[in-house]
Amino acid sequence: MRVAVMTAPGAVHVEDRPEPRVVEPTDAVIRLAATCICGSDLWPYRGIETIDGPRPMGHEYAGIVEEIGPAVTTVRPGQFVVGSFFASDNTCEICRSGYQSSCIQREAAAPGGAQAERMRVPLADGTLVATPGMPDDDLIPSLLAASDVLGTGWFAAVAAAVGPGKTVAVVGDGAVGLLGVLAAKELGAERIIAMSRHESRQKLALEYGATDIVTTRGDAGVAEVKDLTGGLGAHSVIEAVGTQESMLQAIAATRPGGHVGYVGVTHNVTLPGMDLFFSHVHLHGGPAPVRRFLPDLIDRIWTRRIDPGKVFDLHLPLDEAAAGYRAMDQRDAIKVLLHP
Amino acid sequence: MRVAVMTAPGAVHVEDRPEPRVVEPTDAVIRLAATCICGSDLWPYRGIETIDGPRPMGHEYAGIVEEIGPAVTTVRPGQFVVGSFFASDNTCEICRSGYQSSCIQREAAAPGGAQAERMRVPLADGTLVATPGMPDDDLIPSLLAASDVLGTGWFAAVAAAVGPGKTVAVVGDGAVGLLGVLAAKELGAERIIAMSRHESRQKLALEYGATDIVTTRGDAGVAEVKDLTGGLGAHSVIEAVGTQESMLQAIAATRPGGHVGYVGVTHNVTLPGMDLFFSHVHLHGGPAPVRRFLPDLIDRIWTRRIDPGKVFDLHLPLDEAAAGYRAMDQRDAIKVLLHP
Repeated sequence: MRVAVMTAPGAVHVEDRPEPRVVEPTDAVIRLAATCICGSDLWPYRGIETIDGPRPMGHEYAGIVEEIGPAVTTVRPGQFVVGSFFASDNTCEICRSGYQSSCIQREAAAPGGAQAERMRVPLADGTLVATPGMPDDDLIPSLLAASDVLGTGWFAAVAAAVGPGKTVAVVGDGAVGLLGVLAAKELGAERIIAMSRHESRQKLALEYGATDIVTTRGDAGVAEVKDLTGGLGAHSVIEAVGTQESMLQAIAATRPGGHVGYVGVTHNVTLPGMDLFFSHVHLHGGPAPVRRFLPDLIDRIWTRRIDPGKVFDLHLPLDEAAAGYRAMDQRDAIKVLLHP
Repeated sequence: MRVAVMTAPGAVHVEDRPEPRVVEPTDAVIRLAATCICGSDLWPYRGIETIDGPRPMGHEYAGIVEEIGPAVTTVRPGQFVVGSFFASDNTCEICRSGYQSSCIQREAAAPGGAQAERMRVPLADGTLVATPGMPDDDLIPSLLAASDVLGTGWFAAVAAAVGPGKTVAVVGDGAVGLLGVLAAKELGAERIIAMSRHESRQKLALEYGATDIVTTRGDAGVAEVKDLTGGLGAHSVIEAVGTQESMLQAIAATRPGGHVGYVGVTHNVTLPGMDLFFSHVHLHGGPAPVRRFLPDLIDRIWTRRIDPGKVFDLHLPLDEAAAGYRAMDQRDAIKVLLHP
């Protein structure tokens, strides 16, 4: 089968690899209906994260179960399923508290890559959620988005304690930030300030429910958010970048007693204790426990209440994965969907 | 009147200064029934925080109102009152959300020092809370504790989301940590792990409701907390020290999805982003909004449900403040009460 492999920074190609098969009794094998390229795939692509040898890429997936191990009971061949980038048993105490991405049995959900025709998913019972039936084709991008970027934006909004009456600021206009806007809207936010300097992304942010756009960043961006909030800062701030600048911007844009939900993978970030202490913010985030939200998100997609699939502004055949990486690296595309 | 003044690291003396008087119409002047030395007073005493000229010391107070400004309406001369170390209007949006220590009008509550016979309190209406009547003498240490250490320990417990069924770990066995134990007990914690290497402090921790004592710290302390919690870590961790080691110990001792409440003033702390990201903890803290809790805390003290005043294991006349600083610096005393 075909799978996208990264061999060095900037070097992605699609090659033939052996078909995945059930290894553990708790495994499932799925045929992907769609997969995609993640902002986090750009870290190794840009050489910021090192690669030790050829790495099969991708961790976002939606597709049809083809085979299950003998211990699997909750999904069966023929069902359409969505799962998170982390496999989880969904039964341990940590999973039951809603933190499946820190499951005591946590492992990568796509050990052989998900930018592929087929993939093996460990802990299938705990990891996969079946849709109510076979989805219409136009729902597939949105179901795929639920696998990571929607679930991550949603977690950021929940971690930032978004709710009715709240003013929310969103730092980062990538797919996660944009879906953070959508989540904030769905969760009842009164006002949503999207921080973005890119017109096409501003447009989607407004479509998803943003009420204000701030085009500055850093101290100037913070000052603008404060101006919009009576000098106090936002109640809730979603951080969806993961740099030192974006984290400090998110904390400074939050009012005392407010909440920062951070989901950008924090590369080379160190938070100064005194600033954090006197900021008086709540800080919560980390790898999104997407599994917690999947049933609800699938329902919202299935009933066509939300359309997160719009973040895929470039669709390519899997074999053209390299072009997809280039487009995302150069910010020509927000997010690239790959058809296996 | 007499007031304790620090002139250099290690140098505290008590001198005569002019009587405080009402300056702003919102001020009150109180005669102190008791005052005390704070762990945070040791930062300049030890030379870790610099002093620019002689500094009148102290910010914890309980006493009788002697004079009020013409705009003061909620307290009157003759009442016994307790207040927080930060003055607050208690009417702004930040105060109303429970973060009075970040009030938009915030200022020091004891600009002329509280280790004194009398003090001026700004924003008296928002800052001071009157007791139901004149307290018995034996209640005064507890009411004084409410002014800072009890309120701070209580906030740490609330910030750490302590509640029924929870396992709580407390990092730090100073007065704030010990009163964090008391707060955790009052808030319904099922199990309270006090981390302490000092026998007298362990004893008070047990009296206040600790169920387990851990005498190790750093990685070994974290391992012991994990051993006591099925390998997962505590649900709630109170951080009451404020060093790099104690913050990392608190974060590492918390289970994914758990809460760290930190109130130790974070000197020279920098939090590594990746560790925080994958810890999956909620982090909240800062200068305790003691005012939020004062009515409740005064009620618990007045009805003799709690006895936080026990943390004062050395009582001295105000004129012997220097001996009090020495005792706390050398950890001969947990906390020193001064009689003006």
